[in-house]
Amino acid sequence: MVFVPELIQKKRDGISLTAEEIEYLVNGYVRGIIPDYQMAAFLMAVYFKGMSYEETTALTLSMARSGEVMDLSSIEGIKVDKHSSGGIADTTTLVLLPLVASAGVKVAKMAGRGLGYTGGTIDKLESIPGFKTQLTKDEFLKNVMTVGAAITAQSENLVPADKKLYALRDVTATVESIPLIASSIMSKKLAGGADKILLDVKFGKGAFMKTYEEALELAKTMVKIGYLAGKEVVAYVTDMDQPLGLAIGNALEIIEAAEVLKNNGHQDLRELCVRFGAEMMVLAGIEKNLIKAQHVLEENIDNGDALTKFKEIIEAQSGDPSVLDDYTKLPQSTFVHSLVVDEDCYIKDVDAFKLGVCAVRLGAGREKKEDKIDHSVGIVLGGKVGDKLKEGQAYATIYANSYEKLEDAINMVKDSFQFSKLPVQKKKLIYARITLESIEA
Amino acid sequence: MVFVPELIQKKRDGISLTAEEIEYLVNGYVRGIIPDYQMAAFLMAVYFKGMSYEETTALTLSMARSGEVMDLSSIEGIKVDKHSSGGIADTTTLVLLPLVASAGVKVAKMAGRGLGYTGGTIDKLESIPGFKTQLTKDEFLKNVMTVGAAITAQSENLVPADKKLYALRDVTATVESIPLIASSIMSKKLAGGADKILLDVKFGKGAFMKTYEEALELAKTMVKIGYLAGKEVVAYVTDMDQPLGLAIGNALEIIEAAEVLKNNGHQDLRELCVRFGAEMMVLAGIEKNLIKAQHVLEENIDNGDALTKFKEIIEAQSGDPSVLDDYTKLPQSTFVHSLVVDEDCYIKDVDAFKLGVCAVRLGAGREKKEDKIDHSVGIVLGGKVGDKLKEGQAYATIYANSYEKLEDAINMVKDSFQFSKLPVQKKKLIYARITLESIEA
Repeated sequence: MVFVPELIQKKRDGISLTAEEIEYLVNGYVRGIIPDYQMAAFLMAVYFKGMSYEETTALTLSMARSGEVMDLSSIEGIKVDKHSSGGIADTTTLVLLPLVASAGVKVAKMAGRGLGYTGGTIDKLESIPGFKTQLTKDEFLKNVMTVGAAITAQSENLVPADKKLYALRDVTATVESIPLIASSIMSKKLAGGADKILLDVKFGKGAFMKTYEEALELAKTMVKIGYLAGKEVVAYVTDMDQPLGLAIGNALEIIEAAEVLKNNGHQDLRELCVRFGAEMMVLAGIEKNLIKAQHVLEENIDNGDALTKFKEIIEAQSGDPSVLDDYTKLPQSTFVHSLVVDEDCYIKDVDAFKLGVCAVRLGAGREKKEDKIDHSVGIVLGGKVGDKLKEGQAYATIYANSYEKLEDAINMVKDSFQFSKLPVQKKKLIYARITLESIEA
Repeated sequence: MVFVPELIQKKRDGISLTAEEIEYLVNGYVRGIIPDYQMAAFLMAVYFKGMSYEETTALTLSMARSGEVMDLSSIEGIKVDKHSSGGIADTTTLVLLPLVASAGVKVAKMAGRGLGYTGGTIDKLESIPGFKTQLTKDEFLKNVMTVGAAITAQSENLVPADKKLYALRDVTATVESIPLIASSIMSKKLAGGADKILLDVKFGKGAFMKTYEEALELAKTMVKIGYLAGKEVVAYVTDMDQPLGLAIGNALEIIEAAEVLKNNGHQDLRELCVRFGAEMMVLAGIEKNLIKAQHVLEENIDNGDALTKFKEIIEAQSGDPSVLDDYTKLPQSTFVHSLVVDEDCYIKDVDAFKLGVCAVRLGAGREKKEDKIDHSVGIVLGGKVGDKLKEGQAYATIYANSYEKLEDAINMVKDSFQFSKLPVQKKKLIYARITLESIEA
């Protein structure tokens, strides 16, 4: 007979719990046998005392098993999933999916909606007229097999333990805990059924993790959980002090993804997508050498294969692929207002967090779960830190559907930028690449 | 607008809460606006981060105000309350009440029932045929004014915040926290309406606090809370490794209290009662000098005044005072079994905790709140650590009402004692006396 207060006390006193004890807690909680108040006390004890890799893995596995687990075995080859911890103007998934699929990687992607100041891939795709984001399991698997990639909204029954635990953490000040964050992310990845996982852990003003150290610890924890759960994981730690791409907003990010695949778009976003794509090719066993894989992907951008693949994916999910050629077919905002610089200068700072909040206020994101999204609104930047702007050039363009919101946004965007007459160094993008070997070394 | 997760986070991050914030939490919790799970997370954060004296005082005052607060202003003079953190064979209240009343101290005492291995004064008094432990407010005040002392069970509406918080702490591993323990005790004392308070904080095997350091910190915290709440508090830190008196059990402790007042009983119990009584006289302003006060009380034992006062108290609460002259009028057990030593020896150790558990098993206490108490059963010791026993002398006598329970008790009592052929030093009883001055010094 397990006595819950004793398990709470054990964690409180810094003693590791066994896998069976953790399973008992998660199971009991999901089934409503263990009440919220005991789980809340346990979570706060975890906040203070942490969890070993073994405990965190046991928690992750118990959570992953709490609902439906995807079976991707009908798809041939090694299935690779990619996950970002969330950021501003983070359009990587939209670029990566067609890019790696064009190089033969099979991607069965389950994605979420946005909450708070970071956007969600599913919301972005719903900008495309007709695009179906709720595929049946059969449609999903069929599209992966025929097109090479498919993307669907997370099923309601994927990791119910995470839904219940996250809702509780959100109201008990127990969100900011590495083992709890790691198990939340990894339980969904494990339930998603992929064989290998690529993780992008972002840090900085616009990310959930504010410091490099936290992001590094989270990345290491997830690579280790993957290993202990029998899945190879590669994790990157990347900058999110400034936005990654230039577009913030749903339809605007579809356009930016298309632009990257058309050989335009900001260098940073392209660089990260090609790098991540190459990692996925290596993880999938399609290419052994990372540099060679990058060349294949660069070529698939140049020759238009990746863009064609994006159209195929859209078409296979009942969307209108012609939006990629004619952006006016995407939702349009009433107001389009550019902010310009009044002299030649360099961008010194762009605050990703402030811009993320601004985009949500414009209607691009949700403050509450129930909020509706306005797919047309958002902000497009004229450049990133270190980029040069000429007198009269726009440093930001705001897309809004009400004059009031536009006015607020102008102030917020102005407040997000700093300029310098002297040249400013560009910021580092990739800070670390974590594999099991790099942790053990 | 106060946002509860932010208050939890503040405490989690080690930032002190304001009195208003604490009031909001306690009020919201008692009124059911703040759910158990948020309070559980908050309590666990308090467990790890502690509380300043100011915060603990704010918590105590908010709790004290959550229900009925006794108004003792109709009773003339300075009203002094006494509280023990609980122990085994701790009969002090039963002795002290008549003792100090016989010296002119007015005592309006609200007491609790026992739960777990420590006894409750109300349970003990209910051994006396006819004794009413539920007085109306008018009866209670009238008895204090006419007899000098009255004792009643805590009203259901005294500090409801403590009842609700304690029940939650009990199932979330958040009991062992000095500020939470201190506020629980002190809120009841403040709601009890006395002007000054004497505290006995026990430590050791048979006490809630296991170490001297913890007991000392608790004592200091409560003295400080008293000061910040405008009430003078004197606290003692005393030993509870071995039982205080010799009797464990309800009727048995009535007999022991009577014996002390008849100039018999164990020296330790008498010493502590006289010392505490003297403190109460000084606190009440009846005597300035602690030594002189002790002489007055010694005299009131010698001349029988204190015993007479005990009878008056019992009579005023509809009890039969003749039980103090004829102990057979108290509940009697079926089995009385003595354990004897088979050679001359000294008592080396007596485990208060084991004996407390044994007494509960016999039926003297409650394992669960709903359990009924058997007033006749218990254990009477033949001595304490350092006392000499002659061959064939009883070191313990067990009072039981079933043969099975008697057999179990015999094993447990045997297991609680250790003997030595060589003389053993007596144990220290009083470890510290804490006043505001001693903390600040």
